[in-house]
Amino acid sequence: MKQAQMLPERLKEAFKERIKDFRDACYNLFGYKLKLVGQRRWSISSMYADSPDDVLLFEISHSGEPSLLETPFSSTLGDLISLHLMRQNSIPAFVSAVTLELASRQTIA
Amino acid sequence: MKQAQMLPERLKEAFKERIKDFRDACYNLFGYKLKLVGQRRWSISSMYADSPDDVLLFEISHSGEPSLLETPFSSTLGDLISLHLMRQNSIPAFVSAVTLELASRQTIA
Repeated sequence: MKQAQMLPERLKEAFKERIKDFRDACYNLFGYKLKLVGQRRWSISSMYADSPDDVLLFEISHSGEPSLLETPFSSTLGDLISLHLMRQNSIPAFVSAVTLELASRQTIA
Repeated sequence: MKQAQMLPERLKEAFKERIKDFRDACYNLFGYKLKLVGQRRWSISSMYADSPDDVLLFEISHSGEPSLLETPFSSTLGDLISLHLMRQNSIPAFVSAVTLELASRQTIA
């Protein structure tokens, strides 16, 4: 059945499922739960975090540029922030370094 | 306007926009374009890759477990595969290590 012919309820379900698949793929491949928590604000929490409260918060500017907002968890990551955000200017490198740091703690323990 | 009251066309647009926001957030925060390329198959390509053809391909099993499929690009990543997939058994750690490797090449150059 083509989307255009679907009833609104059915269409809504189909899209919800697609968004869920996307969210699950994100979690499985990148290791983070990705959530929209406000207008242009996203939170991510790592599958390797000690606590689900250990979130990183980002705001996307009108031009599409993301920046890290302070959270209790981000304030424990000074070294990675200096290296990857301030020197390397790369949010993906920073987020990746957080994953490697948290995952290595778990696999060493 | 509540979603249930929307016309199908309008609803479709609203969901498409939501999926696009999600996709953009993925790209900005994790550094990868995430694409569904078949039933339970996802491809990711890094913003730091030399070529858009440098993709990693994953298949999600029925139980939700992802595994890496071979691509020309993955076959160049033997060391990271050994360390993070075979020893650490972590796809997010592997994907993160690829980001850090590619990003560091770009920032050194």
